[in-house]
Amino acid sequence: MKIYFSPFSPFVRKCLIAAQELGLGAQITLLPANVHPVQRDQSVIALNPLGKVPTLLTDNGQVLYDSRVICEYLNDLAGGSLIPTCGSARWAALTLQSLGDGMLDGAVLARYEEAARPEALRWDAWRVGQLDKVETSLAFLDAQPQLLDGEAFDIGQIAIACALWYLDLRFTDFGWRERFSAMARWYADACQRPSLRMAWSL
Amino acid sequence: MKIYFSPFSPFVRKCLIAAQELGLGAQITLLPANVHPVQRDQSVIALNPLGKVPTLLTDNGQVLYDSRVICEYLNDLAGGSLIPTCGSARWAALTLQSLGDGMLDGAVLARYEEAARPEALRWDAWRVGQLDKVETSLAFLDAQPQLLDGEAFDIGQIAIACALWYLDLRFTDFGWRERFSAMARWYADACQRPSLRMAWSL
Repeated sequence: MKIYFSPFSPFVRKCLIAAQELGLGAQITLLPANVHPVQRDQSVIALNPLGKVPTLLTDNGQVLYDSRVICEYLNDLAGGSLIPTCGSARWAALTLQSLGDGMLDGAVLARYEEAARPEALRWDAWRVGQLDKVETSLAFLDAQPQLLDGEAFDIGQIAIACALWYLDLRFTDFGWRERFSAMARWYADACQRPSLRMAWSL
Repeated sequence: MKIYFSPFSPFVRKCLIAAQELGLGAQITLLPANVHPVQRDQSVIALNPLGKVPTLLTDNGQVLYDSRVICEYLNDLAGGSLIPTCGSARWAALTLQSLGDGMLDGAVLARYEEAARPEALRWDAWRVGQLDKVETSLAFLDAQPQLLDGEAFDIGQIAIACALWYLDLRFTDFGWRERFSAMARWYADACQRPSLRMAWSL
C-alpha cells in the first residue's frame, strides 16, 4: 500500500498510528505530498480530486480517502479491533473519533488563520471560535475520563491523541495540560504506546 | 430520535435524506439549532462540545455525531443497504461519501469567507482554493459517470447530491451544469427521488 503523506498532517498521523497498532506499518510506503488549501498539489489531485492527505492506494489499485475510511479499511484488512463491530460501543467509538476529528478541523482552521492567511486579513473572532471548539471539547472529555478509559486503544482514542499532538505541535502556548489535568494524565500514558512514539520521515 | 437541525445545513440534509430512504423519517424529531463558527450555540454544545449540527439523540439516550456516524447508525437501525457491508463496494461508497463531504467542506468555507467574514478581511485566494476543490471534484465525477450509476442510491450518492444542492443554494452563479453535463443529468434524475424532493422546516 502507498499513502500520500505529510509529516505535519494530524490526519495522516491517525492512519499511521492505526497501521502500527494493527501491525501493518511495514506494508505502507510513504509518498511525499505538498498539500495546501491555496497552492494545491496536482499529484494528489490526479487520484483524489480534493487534493488532500491522507490518500491511500491499496495493493489492488483502489484509491481511498479520507482518514476515517482508510483507518476502517486497515482495521478490516488486519482483522483488527480498533473499531467495535456493532452496537452502542461502535457508535461511541465512532463519535469519539468525530470529536477528535472535529477538534482537529477547528485547530487546523485556526492554524491557517494565523500562519497561512496574510496578516492584514486575519479575523480574530474566527480563530477564537475555532479554538473554542477545542476548548469545549477538552472540558467535556476532562469531565468524563471514562470516555477514554476503554481497555482497547480504539479509533476514538487514536483521534483524540492526534488532536492533542497537533495542539502541542502548533499551539505551544495553548496550555491545555494546566486546565485539563485528567486529559494530561491520559495523554501521558497514551504517549508510551510504541505506535505514538514512532517518528515518520521521508 | 431527535436531531439538532438547521434547514440550510447540507450535513443535516444528508442525514434526513438517509432517514427518508430508510423509512425512518417519521421517527425523527427536528430540534432547532443556531450554530455558527463564531457565535456558538450553547444548547448544542451541552451535548456535543463541537457545537455542530447534525447531532442525534437516540431513543436510548446516546448522543451521536457527525453526519457519517448518524447515517451509519440509521442504516444499521433500519437494516438498510445505504452502505455496502464489506469489500471494495464498501470502500468505494465510503470514499464517494468522503468526496461529497469534502466538496461540502470546501464550499462551506468559501461561503463563510464571502458571507460571514467582514468584507475587509476576505482573502480571495482562499475562497478560490476552496471552490477549486469543488471544481476538480466535479470534473473527476463528470469524467467517470460510472461512479454514480450504481443501482442502489447509496451513501456516496446521497453525499454528492447534498453537495450539488448546496452549490445551487449558495453559489447560484457557479454554473456547474454548463461545464459538467453528465453530472447535471445524473442530478436531475436523482432529484426525482421522494427523499430529495421533501422539504424540511420547523
